[in-house]
Amino acid sequence: MHVQDPAEQIALIALAQELADCARKISLQHFRPIGGIGAANKHATGFDPVTEADRAAEAAMRAILQERRPQDGIYGEEHGVTQGSSGLTWVLDPIDGTRGYMSGTPTWGVLIALCAQEADGPGAPLMGVIDQPYIGERFIGGFGRADVSGPQGTAKLATRAAQGGLESATLFSTFPEIGTAQEKSAFDRVVSQVQLTRYGMDCYAYALLAAGQIDLVVEAGLFPYDVAAPIAVIEAAGGIVTNWQGGPAYRGGQVLAAANPDIHAAALAALAG
Amino acid sequence: MHVQDPAEQIALIALAQELADCARKISLQHFRPIGGIGAANKHATGFDPVTEADRAAEAAMRAILQERRPQDGIYGEEHGVTQGSSGLTWVLDPIDGTRGYMSGTPTWGVLIALCAQEADGPGAPLMGVIDQPYIGERFIGGFGRADVSGPQGTAKLATRAAQGGLESATLFSTFPEIGTAQEKSAFDRVVSQVQLTRYGMDCYAYALLAAGQIDLVVEAGLFPYDVAAPIAVIEAAGGIVTNWQGGPAYRGGQVLAAANPDIHAAALAALAG
Repeated sequence: MHVQDPAEQIALIALAQELADCARKISLQHFRPIGGIGAANKHATGFDPVTEADRAAEAAMRAILQERRPQDGIYGEEHGVTQGSSGLTWVLDPIDGTRGYMSGTPTWGVLIALCAQEADGPGAPLMGVIDQPYIGERFIGGFGRADVSGPQGTAKLATRAAQGGLESATLFSTFPEIGTAQEKSAFDRVVSQVQLTRYGMDCYAYALLAAGQIDLVVEAGLFPYDVAAPIAVIEAAGGIVTNWQGGPAYRGGQVLAAANPDIHAAALAALAG
Repeated sequence: MHVQDPAEQIALIALAQELADCARKISLQHFRPIGGIGAANKHATGFDPVTEADRAAEAAMRAILQERRPQDGIYGEEHGVTQGSSGLTWVLDPIDGTRGYMSGTPTWGVLIALCAQEADGPGAPLMGVIDQPYIGERFIGGFGRADVSGPQGTAKLATRAAQGGLESATLFSTFPEIGTAQEKSAFDRVVSQVQLTRYGMDCYAYALLAAGQIDLVVEAGLFPYDVAAPIAVIEAAGGIVTNWQGGPAYRGGQVLAAANPDIHAAALAALAG
């Protein structure tokens, strides 16, 4: 029902790429300073380079959107909600993975999603971009596209087919602590059944799932802007993203991203205990 | 005492870069296949693409060394020891971080080090390279050089200065499990005192330490080829790498890499309990 016109779809993807280009440039200005971000923080009193980069990148994206799509809503991590009238909302996280950003890892990303607007907030994502500025890599999903372009060229995105249940699966999550003690217990039930669990990849883990390299991402405590773009990219690549009860995940909270229906069902059962 | 001639030092760095170029090309041939490495593994019976890439990359590097430096020894992960007579040994790990490689993360690396030869194995590293093929990023340390070149240009490497003890430090390690139960306990004492602990970066964590972005890497169960190149790069950047007792780390085992003497001493004390 939303955005059926192919020409408008192409224009919206081009606009999302323009936003990503803009955020990429700004976020890189403060990335990996000499001595690290902690040092920059310490020596310039009151100046927080992560917050600075985060706010500046989002403000720049909002300025573009307000000029080019004034009728669309905006839901951003740093500058909150701008109501729209078109039934579409842009969901923005200029630097997802700030702890990765502060540590210099190439795992944080610029997240941009175009979502259907619901009465009380952003709804299902229609199209999204996960951009890793340092590598120069961009994952796009939605409106018929599912591809990545980066230092080694361009490739289609497609999630893995079922390969034999949790015992042969690779699971990613950002922190071993996950969330509450109850969430940690549920997560650990999945960990105990999979072949390999890895940590520390921030939003890049969702990109790897879309690219067919891993089977599961399980996280908790997420915000809508953490998950909207990953949902769009993963769904476009053939994967499934729900909450831990199998319902919609686009409002954040507990998120289960899976490469295929079999591994999704197996992980859902393990989380339920 | 080893390799004092500046012209020879420059030639040896150029040769190390040639080895890294060669390994980069081969390792990328099997990286991120469609459907992931698990799938490739399953469908082509008996074919293990990680082992294949690992062996082919090391064999290619050895062939170059045997032609160009036949008097030097070689100590490689895949093809073992070739005795030399020059007092120098090349220590090679064509794909360090095979689990990261299998998961598609840009955290594995080609590790190349030139070491002084000791009677019973490779000795102290003189020069080393940490190469991340997918990003196209190369960290070089030794013979007067300490720099990184990658997608955002070239920069000098310099570890962080002391910034206030463990309570403001960022610690990296590849797996939260670390090693034995005793090693895990010692590691957890460091974790409990630092500001931030992150996992999952394989050898890239050592590169981030050399680049001044993090303060500590603590790992156990390493082999000489896991640690020789990181030692060379970190020492050239001003950091310190020892074992958990403060002795030499170039034979592997328990490794503590630190940005400066203060944070090294604090981490060593925490590990000792």
